[in-house]
Amino acid sequence: MFREEVTAFFQQLQADICQALEKADGKATFQTDAWQREGGGGGVSRILQAGNVIEKGGVNFSAVWGEMPDALRHSNAEFQASEFYATGVSIVLHPHNPFVPIIHMNVRYFETEGGKQAWFGGGIDLTPHYVAHEDACFFHQALKNTCDKHDKSHYPAFKKWADDYFFIKHRQETRGVGGIFFDRLKADEQFTLQDRFAFVQDVGRTFAPTYTQFMHKNKDLPFTKREKEWQYMRRGRYVEFNLVYDAGTKFGLETGGRIESILMSLPPEASWMYNFQPEKNTPEANTLATLVKGIDWAK
Amino acid sequence: MFREEVTAFFQQLQADICQALEKADGKATFQTDAWQREGGGGGVSRILQAGNVIEKGGVNFSAVWGEMPDALRHSNAEFQASEFYATGVSIVLHPHNPFVPIIHMNVRYFETEGGKQAWFGGGIDLTPHYVAHEDACFFHQALKNTCDKHDKSHYPAFKKWADDYFFIKHRQETRGVGGIFFDRLKADEQFTLQDRFAFVQDVGRTFAPTYTQFMHKNKDLPFTKREKEWQYMRRGRYVEFNLVYDAGTKFGLETGGRIESILMSLPPEASWMYNFQPEKNTPEANTLATLVKGIDWAK
Repeated sequence: MFREEVTAFFQQLQADICQALEKADGKATFQTDAWQREGGGGGVSRILQAGNVIEKGGVNFSAVWGEMPDALRHSNAEFQASEFYATGVSIVLHPHNPFVPIIHMNVRYFETEGGKQAWFGGGIDLTPHYVAHEDACFFHQALKNTCDKHDKSHYPAFKKWADDYFFIKHRQETRGVGGIFFDRLKADEQFTLQDRFAFVQDVGRTFAPTYTQFMHKNKDLPFTKREKEWQYMRRGRYVEFNLVYDAGTKFGLETGGRIESILMSLPPEASWMYNFQPEKNTPEANTLATLVKGIDWAK
Repeated sequence: MFREEVTAFFQQLQADICQALEKADGKATFQTDAWQREGGGGGVSRILQAGNVIEKGGVNFSAVWGEMPDALRHSNAEFQASEFYATGVSIVLHPHNPFVPIIHMNVRYFETEGGKQAWFGGGIDLTPHYVAHEDACFFHQALKNTCDKHDKSHYPAFKKWADDYFFIKHRQETRGVGGIFFDRLKADEQFTLQDRFAFVQDVGRTFAPTYTQFMHKNKDLPFTKREKEWQYMRRGRYVEFNLVYDAGTKFGLETGGRIESILMSLPPEASWMYNFQPEKNTPEANTLATLVKGIDWAK
């Protein structure tokens, strides 16, 4: 069955990414927690804490199914079905070094009533504490290369979607330098569901080689107390986005998902200073100036 | 006019509380930021950072008016009016010492179309990082004494309201040991609007003498690294409540209030550890066990 093929891929993706991250970190190993969902399915949360490079992060897999939750049924006409199946991988990594960016990836598959409706969703986005132009370009170029293999219109469309989605409205700031975001990718005239799956597989495979580059390149850069404080404030913004806007987090909290798996995205330490305004022409001010929509990072 | 009398009281209350807190802190003085609201009114945020006792806190006053915001108009039949006036004082204090509790107070007055509808709301609640039985009893007794001066039914009703309101649903934990919470206190057969105002005035006046007691009593208690870490995790829960559930915060973020004033409630530093479970019979485990609804702290 198609969904079993997808599920098996996501499970393998989780294993491959964890292995790549352990190797790049060099110290920490993932702790593994399996959990079951009342009503059907469950997941495996893999959490890494106190590594050499990664301070706290999670690579979560889940495959859940059963009766359509009321919260979903009321949200959209597409969820007017009695049964659902959902599987995916979610990742958030918070590094120690303020010059290594925070990263997030999610890839997911959803179907109703044994495939009556079926779609893929997902995305990858990068949240540097300090925006380095060449890193942002490298990241977006990697995503564009992956997208272009499937369709030339993917990258511009999904890049814009990420700009709009990963946006902290009350701050009028993007969460970071964006990336790609997509949802409800169904079979249509142009793409079969297998084509959509092939695209999502490639997105998933883009994660580890891209992020471990940043780990290797930036993990030993020296940093000051001020840079660490700025990192904690940026993490505060990450918390604001995740608790106020992130659709997955909100849905998880409302429908009684496994809290510790959902909130693995929250940083190990974060801070809020009242009305902090960086001085002009500092790296902090320059970073804030790039946290806007619509920057073309890829060629 | 009544609303001017109420507004003047809240302004004076802000000044009095700031003075009492500065005196009890002994080091920090409040920074004062006045702001204006497009559409009518404004406020004065008073923020204290890096004190002897208080690490970060705010005592905010605002009085805003004008056209009824759409977000309010759509929320409730009582807000089907063209104009509103709202004024209040909001306080959150995060102390350095893990044995000094976090405190929150809000007192507010709302009216539509020049007093066609008018009500008071508010509350005080205490969030100890470590629940000390005698402190929780002292706090609740002070609130009960204030309530009982006005009506014997106030304390039990408003205490239960606080238990239900200050509840982190996804954790199934109360935010702290509760306190009192009330809303839409209007004139009725039993109470005039002046009676309601007198009650809210007394609630406001209960704040400073009660909280400065905890400051004096606990500020110099020695603490360990583990206790500091636990404090940061409890502050993480405070962030979760405020960003996910707090009605005032959500309303402020949605209607474009002054962000730095709204989010002054967030702690200077907070942390999240994956799936932290305190060992049995530790002070941390005992604290978690008391973060439940329905404990009778007052006689």
